Amino acid sequence: MDHDATLDLDARAYALDRAHVFHSWSAQGALDPVVIAGGSGTRVWDHAGREYLDFSSQLVNVNIGHQHPAVVQAIVEQAQQLTTISPPTAHLVRGEAARRIAAVAPDGMDKVFFTNGGADAVENAIRMARLHTGRDKVLSRYRSYHGNTGAAIVATGDWRRVPNEFARGHVHFFGPYLYRSEFWAETPEQECERALQHLRRMIEVEGPASIAAVLLESIPGTAGVLVPPPGYLAGVREVCDQHGIVLILDEVMAGFGRTGDWFAHTAHGVVPDLITFAKGVNSGYVPVGGVIISDAIAATFDERVFPGGLTYSGHPLAMASIVASIDAMTAEGIVENAATIGRDVLGPALQDLAERHPSVGEVRGVGVFWAIELVADPQTRAPLPAAAMGTVKAELVKRGLLPFIVDNRIHAVPPCVVTRDDVAEAVTIYDEVLSLVDPSL
Amino acid sequence: MDHDATLDLDARAYALDRAHVFHSWSAQGALDPVVIAGGSGTRVWDHAGREYLDFSSQLVNVNIGHQHPAVVQAIVEQAQQLTTISPPTAHLVRGEAARRIAAVAPDGMDKVFFTNGGADAVENAIRMARLHTGRDKVLSRYRSYHGNTGAAIVATGDWRRVPNEFARGHVHFFGPYLYRSEFWAETPEQECERALQHLRRMIEVEGPASIAAVLLESIPGTAGVLVPPPGYLAGVREVCDQHGIVLILDEVMAGFGRTGDWFAHTAHGVVPDLITFAKGVNSGYVPVGGVIISDAIAATFDERVFPGGLTYSGHPLAMASIVASIDAMTAEGIVENAATIGRDVLGPALQDLAERHPSVGEVRGVGVFWAIELVADPQTRAPLPAAAMGTVKAELVKRGLLPFIVDNRIHAVPPCVVTRDDVAEAVTIYDEVLSLVDPSL
Ligand SMILES: Cc1ncc(COP(=O)(O)O)c(C=O)c1O
Ligand SMILES: Cc1ncc(COP(=O)(O)O)c(C=O)c1O
Repeated sequence: MDHDATLDLDARAYALDRAHVFHSWSAQGALDPVVIAGGSGTRVWDHAGREYLDFSSQLVNVNIGHQHPAVVQAIVEQAQQLTTISPPTAHLVRGEAARRIAAVAPDGMDKVFFTNGGADAVENAIRMARLHTGRDKVLSRYRSYHGNTGAAIVATGDWRRVPNEFARGHVHFFGPYLYRSEFWAETPEQECERALQHLRRMIEVEGPASIAAVLLESIPGTAGVLVPPPGYLAGVREVCDQHGIVLILDEVMAGFGRTGDWFAHTAHGVVPDLITFAKGVNSGYVPVGGVIISDAIAATFDERVFPGGLTYSGHPLAMASIVASIDAMTAEGIVENAATIGRDVLGPALQDLAERHPSVGEVRGVGVFWAIELVADPQTRAPLPAAAMGTVKAELVKRGLLPFIVDNRIHAVPPCVVTRDDVAEAVTIYDEVLSLVDPSL
Repeated sequence: MDHDATLDLDARAYALDRAHVFHSWSAQGALDPVVIAGGSGTRVWDHAGREYLDFSSQLVNVNIGHQHPAVVQAIVEQAQQLTTISPPTAHLVRGEAARRIAAVAPDGMDKVFFTNGGADAVENAIRMARLHTGRDKVLSRYRSYHGNTGAAIVATGDWRRVPNEFARGHVHFFGPYLYRSEFWAETPEQECERALQHLRRMIEVEGPASIAAVLLESIPGTAGVLVPPPGYLAGVREVCDQHGIVLILDEVMAGFGRTGDWFAHTAHGVVPDLITFAKGVNSGYVPVGGVIISDAIAATFDERVFPGGLTYSGHPLAMASIVASIDAMTAEGIVENAATIGRDVLGPALQDLAERHPSVGEVRGVGVFWAIELVADPQTRAPLPAAAMGTVKAELVKRGLLPFIVDNRIHAVPPCVVTRDDVAEAVTIYDEVLSLVDPSL
């Protein structure tokens, strides 16, 4: 059971991982994990000092970059004062964290329920919507991911739902995605109009009075950074209001700086009833997530017991890291940096790649939240096959870039602190690797 | 939105909490949370220095006591090196944590899947059992708690399930609880035999070939520290084996020292197929949980994709705290202390209270895991009403003891580092307060 202590640390990390760590979303047999020992800003490295430029932000969560000193310091100080305390108590830093989140959230959303991550944030948002409306059904879109627990995984619209379908009351609909339109649309306006028409029909045929919530990622992330066309989210808000349906916007991946805004929905001019968050709120420095609650829904539970909870709700270390992270992001203009880099540097550079590489079918995104969609054939838009994507991944890593790859896409999702130089470096690497898979036309 | 910065810190903590923090399992209107600012060992205190003896271990999770210096130090050092890294990487301290958990687990359980807490540990254990067996149903007992997410809450057997019943494939059965027997039993032997007979019948009528798992807390905790009679868990193991049913033991509350053993099931001579853990594994210093997996079930996912995962799986801070916590508990004999205190001091003292107080219907437990069941009438065993329990709670807190109260019970669940003097102090307080509610016979 014990391992040779004389192995070098990278080898030991690798061996212990293979012997004892069971991994997410994988067959365990063929795994070949990269060893990571430390990091700073947009860089991580292994024990031997081999460095990677992190254009994944890990799982699109390290928005503030690795090892931000103020956030590390806040965790250290809180650890030395009080690492853990149960949810029913009042603890100062918990209130401070909730206040800061409420302050960046839309007006009229003053209360926060803390969870451990994104999945249980979604679970609790669904719970609130059902109890608030007295209805059961939750409508969510195909091409979405909401987490791995009972209801969250069945609300999910990608392949991960299928082997996990043990919750009831979930219905899926198609959302806007012009490049692969489900609605035979040819313009963003058409896609928007037809996607809304489809949602209206789904609500009609499912029965509006049975529907507790529409649950949407403001910008579906893992599904491909599917920025909705102008007017779509506002249209969804309108149809929800018509029928007394709660609008839950999942900002777990899109929120807290990723899009160059505190929340992705802000640019779309809508205010949801419930917002789920995790990841960027503290860049994953301590596991945490939560639900930001409209005053109306919060009031539902003034007299009535809210039947949800968890041991680590409002955990002190997580709370301290949220306070420090929001304060640093504000003081250092980190959200603005994401906006500027996206508009002036990363966006244009990726558009340029798209023009020069026939393997790039489309690039789309905002802020530091971009997808490069790779195709085997620009005409048919047939996705680049898995084997070629494997090559893409291996070649990116070989060149020192840590990529975020889903299906036939490279997601360009660096920390919000990314610099112009980082972008230039990454784009050079993307450029080289795309040349390897460009279809010979 | 901002609050008066001149308020003293306790008042500020309280005000921010009431303004912005949405609480678990409660109506929000009437909450009156105790402010906690710091702690050490078995004590916590507020900003003004008012101290409490923690006989709750918060939510029965701070097994190593508050602010154990070695665990705090490990968190500080890990925070300074690398706070966060994504699950698909290999990270040394994650392997070290998994190795230590595998080392205290039964032989033949070598892999660990890390989650954020107890609920998602249960979710993933259920997922593994279903995919391993190709069957759907999960049998669990009434009087149990397994967490607040989709499947975990529906597997739960207490009132918290009822407003949350949106998962399918869950069936509940009655477990052994002699003091309030469902089986008209009068001895532990009868209770054991009849509870097993009931489970066998449930499996028969539900259809053994449809049942993926039997999910049990080794010792149901929140439900009242219902130590199973000798032979019960072995009997469950046997019936599971007969039918190829996976036995999941939920050790979230009972594991990692609470019973005076690393796992509660050890004393019952059974080896489960999957063990869920959280709480005591690192005393909640950083949110974490997980599933310990038998080699046979792990092998199911060697070639086949395991369709579950989460952003913070194997989080470095959590991993560092697990390593330090298991090492300190081993080096300092903390598990043994829980066993000794339970057997020689806490158990006998509570038995003595039971004999002297007609309000005490029964005390039961092991290690530092005890319940004092309060009754309005020792003959009918009618539970002490909620109002009287409210008095009990208020009077305990007034005397400086932080209690864990569920329904008509005081759970005496101090940290595993509790001393004889702590126990004497707590028992004196229990004694005084019980006198206030003893029925006048
Ligand atoms: C939009 C969205 N919601 C929910 C989740 C689930 O979050 P977690 O992995 O923390 O459970 C994710 C994770 O990627 C996500 O992207
Ligand atoms: C036996 C058991 N299982 C699961 C859970 C859920 O754990 P968590 O609150 O970390 O989700 C608990 C919590 O009390 C528990 O006692």
